[in-house]
Amino acid sequence: MKIFSAGILVIGDEILSGRTHDTNSNFIAKNLIQSGIQLNEIKVIHDLEDEIIKCVLEFSKKYTYVFTTGGIGPTHDDITSESISKAFNRTYEYHTEAYNILQKYYANSDFNESRKKMAKMPSNVELIHNPITFAPGFKIENVFVLPGVPEIMEKMFLELLKKIKKGPPKNIITIKTDLYESVIASFLSEMQIKFKECSIGSYPFFNFATQKAGVNIVISSWTKTKLDEIVLEIQNRIKLKGGKSSIV
Amino acid sequence: MKIFSAGILVIGDEILSGRTHDTNSNFIAKNLIQSGIQLNEIKVIHDLEDEIIKCVLEFSKKYTYVFTTGGIGPTHDDITSESISKAFNRTYEYHTEAYNILQKYYANSDFNESRKKMAKMPSNVELIHNPITFAPGFKIENVFVLPGVPEIMEKMFLELLKKIKKGPPKNIITIKTDLYESVIASFLSEMQIKFKECSIGSYPFFNFATQKAGVNIVISSWTKTKLDEIVLEIQNRIKLKGGKSSIV
Repeated sequence: MKIFSAGILVIGDEILSGRTHDTNSNFIAKNLIQSGIQLNEIKVIHDLEDEIIKCVLEFSKKYTYVFTTGGIGPTHDDITSESISKAFNRTYEYHTEAYNILQKYYANSDFNESRKKMAKMPSNVELIHNPITFAPGFKIENVFVLPGVPEIMEKMFLELLKKIKKGPPKNIITIKTDLYESVIASFLSEMQIKFKECSIGSYPFFNFATQKAGVNIVISSWTKTKLDEIVLEIQNRIKLKGGKSSIV
Repeated sequence: MKIFSAGILVIGDEILSGRTHDTNSNFIAKNLIQSGIQLNEIKVIHDLEDEIIKCVLEFSKKYTYVFTTGGIGPTHDDITSESISKAFNRTYEYHTEAYNILQKYYANSDFNESRKKMAKMPSNVELIHNPITFAPGFKIENVFVLPGVPEIMEKMFLELLKKIKKGPPKNIITIKTDLYESVIASFLSEMQIKFKECSIGSYPFFNFATQKAGVNIVISSWTKTKLDEIVLEIQNRIKLKGGKSSIV
């Protein structure tokens, strides 16, 4: 089975300064797994040309799909499009269709240089439609270039996701138990050795409000469609240790 | 002036699957900038030994400080400590002090193999105290190894932050305006050329509740202590364009 892989490149000083909390990666991650695309890396970098060029090329080689967010606005610190042009040795120029879209959108106000900048892209790219503020993103090779504003990014991402090749969604079942992680650790380890096609993750939780603690055990597989056997076995082991469990 | 730099390595399948929204990076980022430490990169990777080894060594060479989160619990999928031992060619073994702390903590219950695992670390490391669940993190070379659970990570991070060498905090002033980004873009670009020691960031916002839009202009500098001149000039330029502005 072909596994589609992906990397997310978050471009923005505001994330690294802590000013903005990146929510885009999580949104993209959740949608990718449901679309049968395995996200292997998220990287957050500064708005620096050399960094952008290096990372975009590296990701483009490593993954089926690359998604970048941020740095395609009208201001001087928006250097993603120009940097990506350089990365792929393309001319950084006005995209006729993008220019026309923006000219129409700004018809009643001033279509100034900064606004025009949002139509500048690497040559010969495919546009990604922006249904909110109209300044489009673009696709170059296997790289999808998206804005950083979450409301806009999300709509554009869902739109492009419809159009790209996907695999079967990852098969996931979560078992919640009231036992502590250190109590179930040994048999989970055995289960992992026994069921190699699955990945077993263990995520402790502690609810300060209810003072209840426990673990979410996440069993997932890209290839195995039936997880019943392993779920049943884990639930039996929890019972033997005197714990409760439920599928959540 | 010596600039202290940092990289964050987030280790965890649960972030890449979108199951967990990473809040640790943002917490660390905010605290670093206030402590005069420049965060240059955040990377999220799977719980995979080769990946962990490669990234930890790369980050350790590139940055003054490296912070890793995740993968130091008691289960089979917690492989951070063992992987980092391999990265630095150290034996992966019981840390006597860590072992004693955990033995004492679990005195009234079963101090089983999984719990003991949390005392296994690379040889000769310095412990990072965990005031909540007691399983300590550790410092190896310039790498600080922390857990993924935010409530615990945050407390441990703040504790270690007190002890490491820091620089003067980054000087930051934010001007909020009701003008659109594309209106102010041209003069911001001029300002950036004029005031090279500062970095000028432009962050548009749109409040769906109040239907108010505008931009936060963030002027920051690691070296320039007085930002008054540039702030005044930007506020004057906003006024000339018919906009309002305030320092936020």
